[in-house]
Amino acid sequence: MASSTAQSTLPAHHPLVTGRTAESPLLNQYRGSRDSAGTPAAPHRRPVWFMRQAGRSLPEYRRLREGTSMLDACLDPEMASEITMQPVRRHDVDAAIFFSDIVIPLRLAGIDVEIVPNVGPVLGTPVRSRVGVEALPVLDDDAFAPITEAVGRTVEQLGATPLIGFAGAPFTLAAYMVEGRPSRDHLGPRTMMHADPDTWHALASWAADVSGRFMRAQLEAGASAAQLFDSWAGSLGRTDYAAHVQEHSAAALSHVSGLGAPLVHFGTGTGEILDLMREAGADVIGIDYRVQLDEATRRLGPQTPLQGNIDPALLDADWPVLEEHVRQVITSGSEAAGHVLNLGHGVPPTANPEVLTRVVELIHSVEPSTPSAGA
Amino acid sequence: MASSTAQSTLPAHHPLVTGRTAESPLLNQYRGSRDSAGTPAAPHRRPVWFMRQAGRSLPEYRRLREGTSMLDACLDPEMASEITMQPVRRHDVDAAIFFSDIVIPLRLAGIDVEIVPNVGPVLGTPVRSRVGVEALPVLDDDAFAPITEAVGRTVEQLGATPLIGFAGAPFTLAAYMVEGRPSRDHLGPRTMMHADPDTWHALASWAADVSGRFMRAQLEAGASAAQLFDSWAGSLGRTDYAAHVQEHSAAALSHVSGLGAPLVHFGTGTGEILDLMREAGADVIGIDYRVQLDEATRRLGPQTPLQGNIDPALLDADWPVLEEHVRQVITSGSEAAGHVLNLGHGVPPTANPEVLTRVVELIHSVEPSTPSAGA
Repeated sequence: MASSTAQSTLPAHHPLVTGRTAESPLLNQYRGSRDSAGTPAAPHRRPVWFMRQAGRSLPEYRRLREGTSMLDACLDPEMASEITMQPVRRHDVDAAIFFSDIVIPLRLAGIDVEIVPNVGPVLGTPVRSRVGVEALPVLDDDAFAPITEAVGRTVEQLGATPLIGFAGAPFTLAAYMVEGRPSRDHLGPRTMMHADPDTWHALASWAADVSGRFMRAQLEAGASAAQLFDSWAGSLGRTDYAAHVQEHSAAALSHVSGLGAPLVHFGTGTGEILDLMREAGADVIGIDYRVQLDEATRRLGPQTPLQGNIDPALLDADWPVLEEHVRQVITSGSEAAGHVLNLGHGVPPTANPEVLTRVVELIHSVEPSTPSAGA
Repeated sequence: MASSTAQSTLPAHHPLVTGRTAESPLLNQYRGSRDSAGTPAAPHRRPVWFMRQAGRSLPEYRRLREGTSMLDACLDPEMASEITMQPVRRHDVDAAIFFSDIVIPLRLAGIDVEIVPNVGPVLGTPVRSRVGVEALPVLDDDAFAPITEAVGRTVEQLGATPLIGFAGAPFTLAAYMVEGRPSRDHLGPRTMMHADPDTWHALASWAADVSGRFMRAQLEAGASAAQLFDSWAGSLGRTDYAAHVQEHSAAALSHVSGLGAPLVHFGTGTGEILDLMREAGADVIGIDYRVQLDEATRRLGPQTPLQGNIDPALLDADWPVLEEHVRQVITSGSEAAGHVLNLGHGVPPTANPEVLTRVVELIHSVEPSTPSAGA
């Protein structure tokens, strides 16, 4: 079904069109494909991947990145592709997540932005006024060339394993643009919404456009799913999210709807706004470690497939404690139409990669049971 | 009533014993004193104070603090008292909040801790092992002398206006102690709970003891209420809060229960655990700006008095926008047994003090209406 809707807009060699990823347990769960009896289709195996699986927790990553800045690594197609592949080879996860950064579309548009180690994204000139927003550059689609090349190289190696593309959501991008660097409370963008709503709207619209087109570039080049990261949406109450943010996230997602690729929406601390995030146009909701999956299903209804939510704080616990936690997460997610295991937050840089591999083995070993009576 | 239960344990000259703060609109709301018909008693005026009202937003504070480090200022009774009084004089708020810092009990216990400007609390030696916890010093009650002197000086000047004492909750104190500095995810203490629960329990017990005794010192010296700040509790899911944190916050609060002083419990991002925070032994729950007060009442029941929750992000908006927001907060809080206006987070350092004064005037001007039909 997905491939038929996608055929007209994705190139003929795309995995969603050729059907190369058609048997993917991950895409199957993302699609929440309940059969006519209402029970979720059993996956070949229980799928799992980890946010930030490609990155600092892996010694092979640290070796490869040595001497190359974060954004330069993202824009080197060979390096980005190799980094994307590393955790797939090591952990046998069920998807690759494209190695990139949410500020890459800003850099490609010509904005002066750098990832400062131990700080995060820092902009040369924060965007705080109408004049600043009006001076924002136009992002040329040709600028995505290093991204599409890296995606192409990666998909070639992945075979039947899907690649997930991603982008930062408009609020999160705009938060970096207004503050000029990471902040704890995101008071700058939250103030702009109320003190200067027109400028906020213009800025968030710009961010939605580059965010959506960044996802689309990855999908057209071969990714089979995409995740919109609203890292800082948890700093918003429902009222602000509904009035000033949701429409922009919806605009970003609209760039990639109708391609047949499942769309995941995730942010931390977003328990209050899960339903609004789905309404923005997502198929799957990522749940952070704070809200248990059965509670997420109560808030979202059983039709919404979930992703998550192993607590990264458990990765250093004794194995029986971690194993019990992973099994609880599996049980807790069994009421949703689909469930892809993941962490409830990114892999910590200090995580032991061998523990991650063992978690994947555990998840793959748990019988894809028929759903419990209540599901 | 409060003064009779307090008489035996508070000194004879204490405001709660002499009745000097008996008519306080703030204490009245904190006590949620519904009359026999179930309607909240009308306050003389609608009470308001601001978290961090004593501090960086005030030019008179910045002048006074010049050349004195944060913790030295907290431990100078004359300076701490004057800083505590500044916002009461300027804004005509309904309570003073004692000028101090949540790491003061650590410093008084002899731990090497400093507040580094633009960073926050930094410890010379983070506490990450059982050995580290066992080596923690014993805090001598005599060490509170500068605190009790500052409180005494302040209460003398305050007349019928109550002073609120405070402390950091055990999880928040322990988070600083494990990480050694502020962190975004508090992964250190959250990991310790699972990886080494005995050490976590010992550390949190130590923190609960110094936290509770710090509040008790302020109350015995003349404060009429106290607030436990669990600044980082929002990083916890319900399961972890219930299993590893709640009992320690309860232990801290038990040091000051039964004195006749209302106890407020507050943290940001705590929408998922409001009921558990109340169960820890608080009379009043502070609500951050993310959850509307009518929703908080749904979660806590109408018997629980609330504090909050003007969004600091609105302080820079045009006055009509801010006024409308403040009026909405008043309406939204009208279903609770009591309501003390406050911000939903601390005063930002960049806030315009004149706006805060105007907000106080607005709140004091809104008729203490009879509650709406549903209340």
